[in-house]
Amino acid sequence: METHTPYRYKQLSDLIVGMIANGTLAPGTRLPSVRAISEQQRVSISTALQAYRLLEDSGVLVSRPQSGFYVATTRRGTLALPSTSRPPVKASTVSISGAVATLLEHASNSALVPLGCAVPDATLLQSKRLDHVLARTARQYGMRYNAYCAPQGELRLRQEIAKRAMRAGHALSPEDVLITSGCTEALTLALSAIAKRGDTIAVESPTYFGLLHTLEVLGMKAFELPTDPTRGIDISVLSRLLDTKPVAACVLSSNFNNPLGSAMAEIDKKLLLKLLKRHDVPLIEDDVYGDIYFSSDRPKPFIALDGGENTIYCSSFSKSLAPGYRIGWIMAGLHAQKVLEHKLAFSLCSPSLPQVALAEFLASGAYDTHLRRIRRILDENLARMTHAIEASFPGDTKVSRPSGGFVLWLELPKRFDSRALFDEALKQGICFAPGDVFSASRRFRNCLRLSAAYEWNGRIEDGIRRLGRLANTLLA
Amino acid sequence: METHTPYRYKQLSDLIVGMIANGTLAPGTRLPSVRAISEQQRVSISTALQAYRLLEDSGVLVSRPQSGFYVATTRRGTLALPSTSRPPVKASTVSISGAVATLLEHASNSALVPLGCAVPDATLLQSKRLDHVLARTARQYGMRYNAYCAPQGELRLRQEIAKRAMRAGHALSPEDVLITSGCTEALTLALSAIAKRGDTIAVESPTYFGLLHTLEVLGMKAFELPTDPTRGIDISVLSRLLDTKPVAACVLSSNFNNPLGSAMAEIDKKLLLKLLKRHDVPLIEDDVYGDIYFSSDRPKPFIALDGGENTIYCSSFSKSLAPGYRIGWIMAGLHAQKVLEHKLAFSLCSPSLPQVALAEFLASGAYDTHLRRIRRILDENLARMTHAIEASFPGDTKVSRPSGGFVLWLELPKRFDSRALFDEALKQGICFAPGDVFSASRRFRNCLRLSAAYEWNGRIEDGIRRLGRLANTLLA
Repeated sequence: METHTPYRYKQLSDLIVGMIANGTLAPGTRLPSVRAISEQQRVSISTALQAYRLLEDSGVLVSRPQSGFYVATTRRGTLALPSTSRPPVKASTVSISGAVATLLEHASNSALVPLGCAVPDATLLQSKRLDHVLARTARQYGMRYNAYCAPQGELRLRQEIAKRAMRAGHALSPEDVLITSGCTEALTLALSAIAKRGDTIAVESPTYFGLLHTLEVLGMKAFELPTDPTRGIDISVLSRLLDTKPVAACVLSSNFNNPLGSAMAEIDKKLLLKLLKRHDVPLIEDDVYGDIYFSSDRPKPFIALDGGENTIYCSSFSKSLAPGYRIGWIMAGLHAQKVLEHKLAFSLCSPSLPQVALAEFLASGAYDTHLRRIRRILDENLARMTHAIEASFPGDTKVSRPSGGFVLWLELPKRFDSRALFDEALKQGICFAPGDVFSASRRFRNCLRLSAAYEWNGRIEDGIRRLGRLANTLLA
Repeated sequence: METHTPYRYKQLSDLIVGMIANGTLAPGTRLPSVRAISEQQRVSISTALQAYRLLEDSGVLVSRPQSGFYVATTRRGTLALPSTSRPPVKASTVSISGAVATLLEHASNSALVPLGCAVPDATLLQSKRLDHVLARTARQYGMRYNAYCAPQGELRLRQEIAKRAMRAGHALSPEDVLITSGCTEALTLALSAIAKRGDTIAVESPTYFGLLHTLEVLGMKAFELPTDPTRGIDISVLSRLLDTKPVAACVLSSNFNNPLGSAMAEIDKKLLLKLLKRHDVPLIEDDVYGDIYFSSDRPKPFIALDGGENTIYCSSFSKSLAPGYRIGWIMAGLHAQKVLEHKLAFSLCSPSLPQVALAEFLASGAYDTHLRRIRRILDENLARMTHAIEASFPGDTKVSRPSGGFVLWLELPKRFDSRALFDEALKQGICFAPGDVFSASRRFRNCLRLSAAYEWNGRIEDGIRRLGRLANTLLA
């Protein structure tokens, strides 16, 4: 029988803190259920719950509804956050294709430790159920769908996407949705429909290199905005830019910018929308990471805050479910007709069967179950990766603390050369993304992006530790 | 027992000619086998064979190896060929999007008699086997392929395409092939890689409206070349153009131009290639109809004649196998690197599973069997359609005689208005393509395109006859 003392819950919580400190309980680990630990530690259920709640209040544990208690990630840990970027105050012609092609080639090389590619691994995504729906659809209805679908895409898929958009806070009809070949085509359609060669586009800094590559191919200039690793872009700089120079569009992540992981607060998003509206500059938002949030609620995209009045929304299922299916979508509001014309000219329409299969998968509710699973895994992965970075990288390394997505941004001292690290790491069989591909002006050479999109294992953990040691050697 | 007289075969052949004349045996119909007719008509096998051979010699029947005897198409029949086009000698800004969107909307309306859409019907294409391969691949290997494939496309598919290219007369390696979202993306990549907004592109006249739409969206101008319904473009006009004006590229059908069905003779193709080479103007060729030839051998594409030195080859499986799969390809030779960069920017890569399934289907040899079947059907369809046009359209209607593909081009007297016919026909539940969408300068208003891409049936035959009567009424 348990000796019930007023301090029993304190003893239990101290025990847990000790196990975290000595590494027995790694960040992100799920704790035994309240019932299980009460039996293990011979305390009452209320005492166990009291201990867990105490640790939750002090930020050591986090609770997740219907799931239990987890060791809080040490991302709110010992290493500082990267600084707010300070890009040059001018639009840059983009010339990044060569670097991007090289990176993509290495990132897809499965012989390397995969820290370079920001796409969840197939083993982690577990697409079996979706694939089986595709197989059944092909067998039963293949002939019916062996025709061009409407250029807007299959109606059933557009309906499911519209339903999900409604849950994310913006009311839409299927007619507002156009299916694309991933978010890449969505962004290209948006940019080519509203801007032209030579125009200036305002972007985050650092930002996704694929966007910079698209700007280069379309002959548009990038104006890089100072961006904070948690709060997102500096609105005052954008405001000054809009007052002084013509800007054709602004392209921002809706949430969890790649590579920073930053997400603007809702109040800042509203301010930004007002500012852009006043200057009649459309916002193109990229929400591919929006479904991978670690908080209890999905953070709102911009379109949910302005009703699509001045917003073109782009997203895809590539980061959360099916990179191999290449299905994305765009909601272009006032620009929908022009975007449709460009879709017709660029690719006519998207393949039918994958769309139909995905629609059925979404309608079944399986996507939500799937998202709950991968959110938990990716959150844990980021915690473990942060822990491994803290243990092996130079002590003055700064690391981002994203509340969604699956990449970390590392900032090292100014003299550090991530290109040199990249070359060394490749020799040792490790791939990551060097910082300069995330900037039109090739800044961030002292930074790098690590992706935690693979199932965690010893090879990955070891890869990070070896990378950290290499970074130490290069700095020494 | 048969009464054997020296004229028995003559009586049989007269009987057959009579049945053709009164419409019992329609053009393209397959005759009973020699054995079957000898039993039916109580003649010996040699007599039956003699009768068939006599009719073959006089052009009434045609024989096909391993298949039997068919009523010859009357396409070499009573109606004259359309005249060679005479477009204005200047580059035109294209403005065709509205007309194309309207046409596509009607063409996909299954309630209408389907003479408007130049894509073979799913019932005719019989994609069951391909769909089953896709189903099996998705079930067995779905997870393996749930990743971005290389931007060039799946290697196995590129290998199969390279093998087929070799058979068509041009040696290639898989590295020369880049997979696209249909021929539409291939053409867009080619054009955007080698030309820019404001540039002049030389095209056939009439030409595929999708190409004109793409030129419009890319902001390029179309210089329409006089084109003959059998021999293709007038090289001398192109030569004068190249001597006087800057031309960024020339876009031509490899064979069986849509809508004319024209195919240049090999000797003219060689002349053209020399001319373009001399002026350093690249040729973009669109070979989507190349596999649907009615002669014994596949006519060569341009790339087989210049080895790809100055040619960008674009094609797809949309016209011959799987419009719903949206798989095309481009072989861009010297421009391959730039095209790859544009592919990355426009759509990153194509969906994996459909590519893998198609590769397996091609490797099995099933595509060749499939092509033999649909070539025969489409040839017969065109013959029947020509017959129905002769029977119902105004006597001075001119009709093309393509030796491949599945569309017919009709030219009516100058005062005829195919837009008025289009509106009337829609009211009567019939869709076709009015002539003006095939020209940047909106010429050919007295012309129309009919597609024979559906399984022949009474509804289609009746639709053509009613369309013919409408045309007569409008002209009267």
